[in-house]
Amino acid sequence: MRDLSTDTAQLSLNAATVRKRWNLSQIIDGCARHGIGGIAPWRDQVAACGLDIVAQQIKDAGLRVSGYCRGGMFPAGTAAQRAANIEDNLRAVDEAVTLGSECLVLVVGGLAEGLKDLSVARAQVDDGIAAILDYARANNMPLAIEPLHPMYAADRACVNTLKQALDICDRMGNGIGVAVDVYHVWWDPELPTQIARAGRNSQILAFHVCDWLVPTSDMLTDRGMMGDGVIEISKIRNWVEAAGYDGQCEVEIFSAENWWKKHPDAVLKTCIERHQTVV
Amino acid sequence: MRDLSTDTAQLSLNAATVRKRWNLSQIIDGCARHGIGGIAPWRDQVAACGLDIVAQQIKDAGLRVSGYCRGGMFPAGTAAQRAANIEDNLRAVDEAVTLGSECLVLVVGGLAEGLKDLSVARAQVDDGIAAILDYARANNMPLAIEPLHPMYAADRACVNTLKQALDICDRMGNGIGVAVDVYHVWWDPELPTQIARAGRNSQILAFHVCDWLVPTSDMLTDRGMMGDGVIEISKIRNWVEAAGYDGQCEVEIFSAENWWKKHPDAVLKTCIERHQTVV
Repeated sequence: MRDLSTDTAQLSLNAATVRKRWNLSQIIDGCARHGIGGIAPWRDQVAACGLDIVAQQIKDAGLRVSGYCRGGMFPAGTAAQRAANIEDNLRAVDEAVTLGSECLVLVVGGLAEGLKDLSVARAQVDDGIAAILDYARANNMPLAIEPLHPMYAADRACVNTLKQALDICDRMGNGIGVAVDVYHVWWDPELPTQIARAGRNSQILAFHVCDWLVPTSDMLTDRGMMGDGVIEISKIRNWVEAAGYDGQCEVEIFSAENWWKKHPDAVLKTCIERHQTVV
Repeated sequence: MRDLSTDTAQLSLNAATVRKRWNLSQIIDGCARHGIGGIAPWRDQVAACGLDIVAQQIKDAGLRVSGYCRGGMFPAGTAAQRAANIEDNLRAVDEAVTLGSECLVLVVGGLAEGLKDLSVARAQVDDGIAAILDYARANNMPLAIEPLHPMYAADRACVNTLKQALDICDRMGNGIGVAVDVYHVWWDPELPTQIARAGRNSQILAFHVCDWLVPTSDMLTDRGMMGDGVIEISKIRNWVEAAGYDGQCEVEIFSAENWWKKHPDAVLKTCIERHQTVV
């Protein structure tokens, strides 16, 4: 297990963590100023700033891009919309390539409007991934399926366990792996087993950290800073590193009532301190 | 699959569904008045009315008791507290026997205060169940482990999938099974497989229904009436009945902002209508 006690290079900031008070250009500058080694930008922020400008600024700042947020959202009620979703994912691959991202994160999507059949949604996810994988391979852009917590099964992602994500990867072949976010998977009794399985095929493409607060007041925007909740983050990091992962630790915190209200410089300082002490 | 289109006998009302406006005696009367076939009372309500009085009233009303809520909550930070929790579970077995309940539902508990190690909590759950199982067997009271949704892993139950619950049952032997609540398990890609597995050992002791609302505004008290959310309830009922389950369908809805505010007679009418049309 790597010693992060004085590290900032292996820390990556998911831009959502401070996006309420800084635009993407400010976030890139902030990462560089604090010595943070990487960033994970979102497509809407990139579009707002301009893709080429962002790519150049990230390059000039010397940041790694630990992941690009995000592709996915495949299910839809009509074939036309599913085709549009696939087309949009191809553009996300292009953007990820331009940004030099280490992977394109896939939040796969939930039930299409008005539908209840999860097995249909899951089949549409398989179809969507299959439709973009060759293009991603040709562009050397790894796809990282991020299993989301089961509480998001209906509306955000119908891939809800690491096992389920790895089963998809095994069906698809090379060029695809998983993003392990402790918030989504910490509860899973099969977590160590499935992390080890992923390691055997070098399928762990990203590692995301934040914390699970008790109580959690909002299902989407009440994530905690590492150390403020109940997740054994360093135990999980130990598992992913024992499985061969040597990439960055990406901090991604949605926190409407706490961290999003603080000054981003203070948030980044806290991220660094917690990265060095509890991750 | 049973035809419930004119049924009320196979419907059971979990008393929590209307507990904000009726006491337990009123709830028993209400079930009898509406022709509902069963009830699932909670320990605090029973204590408030008096155990023997409640048992007699339920018997006089001709209601089945589909489950008693609840045992469990085993983990604790001290051995003395864990012993007290076990002792309390033995009393819950006694009460369930007096009430003629078909099972004692176990909500196993989450992390003990200040602790983060889920594997410790899970071991304490195993130890707690093992400590009460002989007594439950001797009193012919089946124990029904209810796996709760992973969003409750920290604070309510660290048993979060049907597979995990069945693995415990297999370690423990006879006298113990599971309560399948659609709210907790609907998202699980292994659900049909694990229901079939449970069926092979006659381990499905209870079937609970409500619905998952999109969006869900509160993690605990925003459950939906059957048909108002996204769960394919009848598909899951078909699975449990194909696995041999022939008990009641217990409606359990925690709904602070909607159903708890309505008149209980109206709630019961809706439960019956949805039981006959969407369960």
